[in-house]
Amino acid sequence: MTITITAFERSPDGGKGLARDTRVRWALEEVGLPYAVRLVSFRAMKEGAHLALHPFGQIPTYEEGDLALFETGSIVFHIAQRHAGLLPDDANARARAITWMFAALNTVEPAILELATARIVEGDKPWTKESLPLVADRVREKLKQLSARLGDADWLDGAFSAGDLMMVSVLLRLKPSGILDEYPNLSAYVARGEARPAYKRAFAAQLAVNTGKPPAG
Amino acid sequence: MTITITAFERSPDGGKGLARDTRVRWALEEVGLPYAVRLVSFRAMKEGAHLALHPFGQIPTYEEGDLALFETGSIVFHIAQRHAGLLPDDANARARAITWMFAALNTVEPAILELATARIVEGDKPWTKESLPLVADRVREKLKQLSARLGDADWLDGAFSAGDLMMVSVLLRLKPSGILDEYPNLSAYVARGEARPAYKRAFAAQLAVNTGKPPAG
Repeated sequence: MTITITAFERSPDGGKGLARDTRVRWALEEVGLPYAVRLVSFRAMKEGAHLALHPFGQIPTYEEGDLALFETGSIVFHIAQRHAGLLPDDANARARAITWMFAALNTVEPAILELATARIVEGDKPWTKESLPLVADRVREKLKQLSARLGDADWLDGAFSAGDLMMVSVLLRLKPSGILDEYPNLSAYVARGEARPAYKRAFAAQLAVNTGKPPAG
Repeated sequence: MTITITAFERSPDGGKGLARDTRVRWALEEVGLPYAVRLVSFRAMKEGAHLALHPFGQIPTYEEGDLALFETGSIVFHIAQRHAGLLPDDANARARAITWMFAALNTVEPAILELATARIVEGDKPWTKESLPLVADRVREKLKQLSARLGDADWLDGAFSAGDLMMVSVLLRLKPSGILDEYPNLSAYVARGEARPAYKRAFAAQLAVNTGKPPAG
């Protein structure tokens, strides 16, 4: 059955790979599944047909036969659970990998989203100059803890998993802020993620949409 | 095997049920699993033994034999996947219920956490009076979309699931703000969650810890 995902017709980041379809593309590339992409405009995202697929009017969505899913975490989990390559076979190790998916999305990403809001949505507000350091410190608190846990390991718990895919994707959002560089082991961790061939293919595919050029090679 | 979870020795909310152990207690009550609770002080949460269990120094954690998990979403999912009562049997319906778990934790809760931060952590800052309405409007945007999707259904997708458990738990955090009352179907949805016997037992158990009295009945 064909897998179809949705992505921005024009990503707000212009192709830096920070839109959430990149996470789903990456997962699909890791497990070697082909997929089709339907591009959605900002306007269409908030209209009936897309809202029926995604109640919060966002991308990505995932369609496969009569199954329709939204929410990146859920889509990546769905792919990881059904295809080898993103979750360990051992039941306990699998549960721990899933734990890191949730930690990325519910413990680390909210602090990072707050920083994005402070910079972009409230960037022109008079209080942002004062509030931004507080927001950034809340991000640092999470990064410090994550950095301590990661130590000098390559990945968060044994082999690369969907938990790492999600954590690296979340941390990538910090790149423009420079905060990630304060934690060299996290910087190296993100770089290891970006160096994976599956990530490179996913990145190239989303970039091609945003530049209008097909991916090279 | 005994299941042991951790909870605050003294919850910051004094027993209103908003600490995240309530979500895990609720899941355990829904599927009828007994559990033990180890109480942790704020100081001990940030120290070695607890950090080994929970790298972000939070509660709850979950221990069962040689499995140790943190992150509420992961713990509730682990329970739901292994015991009847929280996820449908049909594979597609199950994937959709899991989608609502992620939607609660990664789409709805971040906006609500931001509101909590603005009210509590930054409550004394000069800009909070001006920023709070913006933060509240971002919460309303999510609630409006959620309300539209729920419509007049009892639960988000068919029978009550771990997705509803998580969404109701996330929405409960809004109660003190009054914002939830602006969406009568969401208010009623949360009330349906609170009316479940399993929720009542979970609530009573966490309240007993915080009042020092054993649960009645």
